[in-house]
Amino acid sequence: MADFRVFSVVLTVCIVCVLVECKYMVYNTSQGIVPGKLNVHMVPHTHDDVGWLKTIDQYYVGSNNSIQAACVQNVLDSLIPALLADKNRKFIYVEQAFFQRWWRDQSEAMKKTVVTLVSSGQLEFINGGMCMHDEAATHYIDMIDQTTLGHRFIKEEFNVIPRIGWQIDPFGHSAVQAYLLGAEVGFDALYFARIDYQDRAKRRDEKKLEVVWQGSKSRGSSSQIFAGAFYEGYYEPPAGFYFEVNDDSPVVQDDINLFDYNVEERVDAFVAAAFSQANVTRSNHIMWTMGTDFKYQYAETWFRNMDKLIHYVNQDGRVNALYSTPSIYTDAKNALNESWPLKSDDYFPYADRINAYWTGYFTSRPALKGYVRTMSGYYLAARQLELFKGRNKSGPTTDTLADALAIAQHHDAVTGTEKQHVADDYAKRLSIGYQECPLLNISYCPATEVDLSLGKKIALVVYNSLGWKRTSVVRIPVINEKVTVTDSTGKVILSQLTPIVNASIAKRKFYATAYIGESPSASPRYWLAFTAVVPPLGFSTYVIASVFIYILSHVAYAASASIKPMSYTLNGSQNGAIQIGPGNLKLIYSANDGKLTQYINNRSLASGAYVFRPNGTFAIQPEGKIPLTVFRGPLFDEVHQMINSWIYQVGPIPIDDGVGKEIVTQIKSNIGNNKIFYTDSNGRDFLERIRDYRADWDLQVNQPIAGNYYPINLGIYIKDKNTELSVLVDRSVGGSSIADGEVEIMLHRRLIHDDGRGVDEALNETVCVLDTCSGLTIQGKYYLRFDPLGEGSKWRRSFGQEIYSPFLLAFTEQDDKWTNFQVPTFSAMDPSYSLPDNVAIITLQELEDGTVLLRLAHLYEVGEDKDLSVMATVELKRVFPNKKINTIKETSLSANQEREEMENKRLSWKVEGSNTKQDTDLRGGPVDPVKLVVELAPMEIRTFIINFNSNLVK
Amino acid sequence: MADFRVFSVVLTVCIVCVLVECKYMVYNTSQGIVPGKLNVHMVPHTHDDVGWLKTIDQYYVGSNNSIQAACVQNVLDSLIPALLADKNRKFIYVEQAFFQRWWRDQSEAMKKTVVTLVSSGQLEFINGGMCMHDEAATHYIDMIDQTTLGHRFIKEEFNVIPRIGWQIDPFGHSAVQAYLLGAEVGFDALYFARIDYQDRAKRRDEKKLEVVWQGSKSRGSSSQIFAGAFYEGYYEPPAGFYFEVNDDSPVVQDDINLFDYNVEERVDAFVAAAFSQANVTRSNHIMWTMGTDFKYQYAETWFRNMDKLIHYVNQDGRVNALYSTPSIYTDAKNALNESWPLKSDDYFPYADRINAYWTGYFTSRPALKGYVRTMSGYYLAARQLELFKGRNKSGPTTDTLADALAIAQHHDAVTGTEKQHVADDYAKRLSIGYQECPLLNISYCPATEVDLSLGKKIALVVYNSLGWKRTSVVRIPVINEKVTVTDSTGKVILSQLTPIVNASIAKRKFYATAYIGESPSASPRYWLAFTAVVPPLGFSTYVIASVFIYILSHVAYAASASIKPMSYTLNGSQNGAIQIGPGNLKLIYSANDGKLTQYINNRSLASGAYVFRPNGTFAIQPEGKIPLTVFRGPLFDEVHQMINSWIYQVGPIPIDDGVGKEIVTQIKSNIGNNKIFYTDSNGRDFLERIRDYRADWDLQVNQPIAGNYYPINLGIYIKDKNTELSVLVDRSVGGSSIADGEVEIMLHRRLIHDDGRGVDEALNETVCVLDTCSGLTIQGKYYLRFDPLGEGSKWRRSFGQEIYSPFLLAFTEQDDKWTNFQVPTFSAMDPSYSLPDNVAIITLQELEDGTVLLRLAHLYEVGEDKDLSVMATVELKRVFPNKKINTIKETSLSANQEREEMENKRLSWKVEGSNTKQDTDLRGGPVDPVKLVVELAPMEIRTFIINFNSNLVK
Repeated sequence: MADFRVFSVVLTVCIVCVLVECKYMVYNTSQGIVPGKLNVHMVPHTHDDVGWLKTIDQYYVGSNNSIQAACVQNVLDSLIPALLADKNRKFIYVEQAFFQRWWRDQSEAMKKTVVTLVSSGQLEFINGGMCMHDEAATHYIDMIDQTTLGHRFIKEEFNVIPRIGWQIDPFGHSAVQAYLLGAEVGFDALYFARIDYQDRAKRRDEKKLEVVWQGSKSRGSSSQIFAGAFYEGYYEPPAGFYFEVNDDSPVVQDDINLFDYNVEERVDAFVAAAFSQANVTRSNHIMWTMGTDFKYQYAETWFRNMDKLIHYVNQDGRVNALYSTPSIYTDAKNALNESWPLKSDDYFPYADRINAYWTGYFTSRPALKGYVRTMSGYYLAARQLELFKGRNKSGPTTDTLADALAIAQHHDAVTGTEKQHVADDYAKRLSIGYQECPLLNISYCPATEVDLSLGKKIALVVYNSLGWKRTSVVRIPVINEKVTVTDSTGKVILSQLTPIVNASIAKRKFYATAYIGESPSASPRYWLAFTAVVPPLGFSTYVIASVFIYILSHVAYAASASIKPMSYTLNGSQNGAIQIGPGNLKLIYSANDGKLTQYINNRSLASGAYVFRPNGTFAIQPEGKIPLTVFRGPLFDEVHQMINSWIYQVGPIPIDDGVGKEIVTQIKSNIGNNKIFYTDSNGRDFLERIRDYRADWDLQVNQPIAGNYYPINLGIYIKDKNTELSVLVDRSVGGSSIADGEVEIMLHRRLIHDDGRGVDEALNETVCVLDTCSGLTIQGKYYLRFDPLGEGSKWRRSFGQEIYSPFLLAFTEQDDKWTNFQVPTFSAMDPSYSLPDNVAIITLQELEDGTVLLRLAHLYEVGEDKDLSVMATVELKRVFPNKKINTIKETSLSANQEREEMENKRLSWKVEGSNTKQDTDLRGGPVDPVKLVVELAPMEIRTFIINFNSNLVK
Repeated sequence: MADFRVFSVVLTVCIVCVLVECKYMVYNTSQGIVPGKLNVHMVPHTHDDVGWLKTIDQYYVGSNNSIQAACVQNVLDSLIPALLADKNRKFIYVEQAFFQRWWRDQSEAMKKTVVTLVSSGQLEFINGGMCMHDEAATHYIDMIDQTTLGHRFIKEEFNVIPRIGWQIDPFGHSAVQAYLLGAEVGFDALYFARIDYQDRAKRRDEKKLEVVWQGSKSRGSSSQIFAGAFYEGYYEPPAGFYFEVNDDSPVVQDDINLFDYNVEERVDAFVAAAFSQANVTRSNHIMWTMGTDFKYQYAETWFRNMDKLIHYVNQDGRVNALYSTPSIYTDAKNALNESWPLKSDDYFPYADRINAYWTGYFTSRPALKGYVRTMSGYYLAARQLELFKGRNKSGPTTDTLADALAIAQHHDAVTGTEKQHVADDYAKRLSIGYQECPLLNISYCPATEVDLSLGKKIALVVYNSLGWKRTSVVRIPVINEKVTVTDSTGKVILSQLTPIVNASIAKRKFYATAYIGESPSASPRYWLAFTAVVPPLGFSTYVIASVFIYILSHVAYAASASIKPMSYTLNGSQNGAIQIGPGNLKLIYSANDGKLTQYINNRSLASGAYVFRPNGTFAIQPEGKIPLTVFRGPLFDEVHQMINSWIYQVGPIPIDDGVGKEIVTQIKSNIGNNKIFYTDSNGRDFLERIRDYRADWDLQVNQPIAGNYYPINLGIYIKDKNTELSVLVDRSVGGSSIADGEVEIMLHRRLIHDDGRGVDEALNETVCVLDTCSGLTIQGKYYLRFDPLGEGSKWRRSFGQEIYSPFLLAFTEQDDKWTNFQVPTFSAMDPSYSLPDNVAIITLQELEDGTVLLRLAHLYEVGEDKDLSVMATVELKRVFPNKKINTIKETSLSANQEREEMENKRLSWKVEGSNTKQDTDLRGGPVDPVKLVVELAPMEIRTFIINFNSNLVK
């Protein structure tokens, strides 16, 4: 053929279509830690709120995606093949409420696969509770319960024990979290993101983001834990390394056959971000949190890019990138054997920027907060009952209530920072576990409202879940005037009727219609009150009947015909100062049936579910003279030490003026507390607070009110050289002492703006019947008391425990057969025994395998009370007189490992400028299996798994 | 122990925590077709545009997600495990440009897995071209090429042959698609979504969405294909059954342990949607397209829900739901043996609602359209050259150009409906295949711009890719005045210099700077024109040199000193009517160097990239008298039959007045065409169009201009009893005949609003140098001619083919060695042979395995020309005189199966009211392996794979 030289010219010029042959690319992701280099620990994670903008189940199945595109099923479904694709890939999973939902859906084959992944460490459970609980609005017993639920599941299904606390999202961090839910569950470290922005700035400057945190004064160095606050205040990857499906970080494009190849550019960005973080971090290890809320919807998108980053960054060699977990990171830090700064107290309150204190949520949704607290005490008691009866293997158990309470501890649940429909979902779940008299707190209880005039009787079982005998007034609504109360010996006892005010009846009708769908047919007219006396861990039975041979002389009626305004004249206080009007204590705010007297105005930069940002404080003058109506009766006189709920009802808060309001009560006294006040940490330790001051940095005061608010779960007190003023609460609230002598508690919030922190909904709670809505009314109880200096703690601790664990009432309409009870009164304990005043049983529960979980808590801190801040003892043989303890095993707080094993393997950390000696004297000694006496040091909580000899019982 | 009856009361009341034990759920998805029921064929699919809002590579890797969240890698990565999880799950994949990118990335193990899935039918390739090409702005040769590229890949890698046409997104549907890219590639059916909304409404009413479509008059019943237009006009699932990750259709929640269980609700919705569709569909089979653009980012989300729907819907039993594919659906329809309505012509123009004709895109981005067309002809020629030279196994090939051209056929590529940066990407890809003189069309060509006064020479190779000898004027820019042109015999031939006007030089500088980054150092001053004579499939060489013995007498300079306005006085037309000013033909629009004379105004509801929606038509008066400057020369006289580009330059279109404009030219004549005009279908068959009329329904005329626009790739003509007026085009445009005697063509569009059809960007093309931007200028050529009735087709067909395949020029600066060429002229064919006038070689290409792909196309329709609409013959021995044909195998149009095999297995369909007889006389007979003569009937295209005896050649 012809010479084609000329075609060569043409073709060379015109065709440059060089396709580089490409092979299947295998990335080297096997890199471990390299000592000499900066190690970037890439920790693939998702943060899955168990309810927030959507309900937990909506998040799980991925419904209601128009609100938020999130489906946890996707995360876990897509994760497994991604992990299987490369054994170097790792992932941590946190929220067990979601994991358990997923686990139930899996085939046996898939479960085996997952077990393998967990065993190999590719999939690691971190934190391991049912949810990532809040740390401000939660009670420590709930925190323990929900963590235990998750930890025991993990132990049972996978035989592993979570090593790391991972509280990355909660809005501030509590001392109890650090030491109880950290050190005491055996965690080697605790990581979190949100600390005050001023604090973070200083810690970055001084390389003090990572510390040894000692959460308890009483528990000494054993309460220390390695704690790391994240670099940026969030838990996302550095900007540009966010590889969620459909998100827009630049992917690593390493295919030279395609356009936009960018490997060098991405490696450079990686190295720059790593060095930036290294600049404020001690040692050559930094952690990158590769994920955020509900990410890994399609896990492969993250791993695909991380594979490439690890491969090319390590090829580059300036830094070392590796797949890691918080455990690996923690081990690496620990291996350095360095000393770390010591951190005390807690990380409250949290501000994410100037004028943005997240202290509003301490009070947001007070109804939900109250419901959670009520259910918490109820659940404690219900498990006791379940144990005594014997756990029903096939029938109803307390498990659903356990689950509901667990997820209610989530940092967007009890916090009140969820959307309204999600708050409703939590309440619905709680109500399923609590079907009895759900509306008792607004005087609606069908079981006691039968018309007793027809000759019927009501049997009322009053259960006491505390280890002490208790004597307390019980109050129930009744229709009839002529009723008697008979105690368990058959003797008619003193009782007292108090009329229910009209406003309460109207409120009751409205709420009953709103919640139940119909108005009750009969209205109770009276509160029937009598004094119940109940043995420890036991019950007493009372019978209420209409009798014609009934003596009414003991009952005192209202002195005034006007029943609209109602208040109490309180006398007999120890200072003689509790009164309305001028004096040592001023009740500046007084709820007189819907007339509010004080509110805080929110106008410009808005308060919202999270943030408290008052614009001004306004006192509302009561309209005219408030008539005083005094109810006196034999019972109330008898219980004169108990100052009953003085704030009866808050709400509806008016917003007709277009202004959201936050209702606070200020209690003023002459106590010279010199800026100092005390609030509890999750209902446990009291921490000293100093107004306009932080121990860790030089506080810039921009919000003199919101910035001094702290969470309260048990109480708040102030003191001077002579006197203590204590206020205890029935639910979590926010409070402070804004001026000397003053205690302030926020009661309720109704807001009309969102504060831009995510929930995207104004906190404006209403109750509706058909189209008629009004602001939610809150009924809560706050208890206050003056004591001489040094004597307040007895009341705060012991009465505080009774607030947490009120009598549990069960009603039944009594038929003839029930006229006489076979067991009208009962105590599980030795009748002659009672727990010491400084110890409470905080858990008593039959586990699925028939063993029994027991937790005993010392209620006093070191030095708190001159008598009770001492080693206490509990005689288990007398607590369980009818059962034989076969074996008893002390465990970690979450009952997923033996205590000794936990202590042996826990990492130890050196603290700058101190010797690491163990304060062993702060702990009770081992339990002798024969004597079975448990010692408890101040603030100590001990957890046991007891195997009873089942043959002996029945 | 004590009697616990009382605890039973308590526990029964308080604990209702019943957890239903749930097993791992296995869904029954195995359902096939059930004869007695309504069968809902659920077809899981994704529609992946190979460029639109993002570039093809950005879509593939998932970069640039801020524009659109889409990553095809995710689709295919996540698909495979989803298919493996349940063998009943099915999926169709369409766009091979994406699939091939993915395939290259896979391991051998994964490839084997995918082969298995394809073999089993779980994964089916549908359509199978590199892209889902457009049907309006594409040339049939490009459609064939891009389909062949995909089909052959599928055949080679998977040994399967796509059965179904799947043009679901293009904006209207062409006759050529139905018969060439449908019937002729062996498809059993063709499905699409977008037809005129009025048409769809009527077809729904009459159950005529599914038809037998005969796309060609010439090809008879062999051009028929079963064609289905979708129910809703889109290709999504019914509302509420859209299960993309992160989207918000209600998922099927069948876990009774979770809240919001909704199986009954979802089944009811499914059944209702199914019956609704069944009401407008013939037979008991309906198809649900389960997917849409770039869906299945995480495939499991779809399959998870479809599994449940199939399970529960079939449990319900009212309808039958099954995983299906278009093939299964088509077989089910075919098995019914019913008759279907006949559809002729095409589905243009497309309106998706009132006043929304998608006819703007016929012209959008005329520069890109021109570039695609230029590259198309170039690619045809380049493959010929590649064959002659011998395909280079390791070096550069035409493959990249093939790929670039293939994806440029996409319905958001050549259509102009992509974003600007994506249009740039297509152009960049094309330019990589075409590096030679890329800016020749704006007079910039470095190779010819060396200063020949220094004694250098340029060798110019002129290649002719047609099967005929051609004589045509070649025009190149030069700097020097004193040049000679020497032909391949060494003889100086006649040449002519025409000055390049200043405006063009300025434009050239601006564009060169914009595209190349620097202004050319020297400016060409003249167009050098000479007549080249080139043999079929061959080249001739010309040498251009500066000579001092040069005679300038032949060169005619501009008669006027003013070179700004420039036009031609055309004479010698057959009607004597082509002139400027009053007469049979009025050039109402005349581009006189930037002064525009006619535009269409878009103000309220906006035109956009897709939609043409004129608000009014405005003629702009030329400013003052336009001086006529006539260039006359010996060559132009010689080629008087060639009416050169009469519109030299359009743009920049001014938008300073805030009004977008669409520039049209109207050619007015006295031809009484009585509303009838003819436009081509993808450059192939001419279809009769009738103004304000549709054959298939009673047209409601709302847009008298836009609604009468049709796509033009070859040309448009009108005729009356005496005369034909034809206009041929050099790229795809939109055109019409809005008034009798008139032909209108839209030349350019510059718009400042988006039309809300997806691209979300105003079609406002600019060219910038640094910060200086101006509207894009378009240089295009439109050719017009008057012929006596019946004689226009010869010009339209033969000259039309020359427009498509212009001479290919290659330049080289000649050194001494090259003074005399060894092969100054060459033809691959027998020197004494030429193809008949009615046949073109549309493909001649060496395949990877060394065989040769040959396509021959008859260029005339039945009855189109009295001489040429007859059976034609091609003597292959004379086409390939230097090669021995070892074997020749006729194949389907896309060369992925033998023709006979294809014909045997293709489904046949009955047409209502007609007998299904095969018009076998419309086809050429089998090729005798000895004689090797190919017969071609009118409009027939025959495809062959030829195995040459390679030993003979060299």
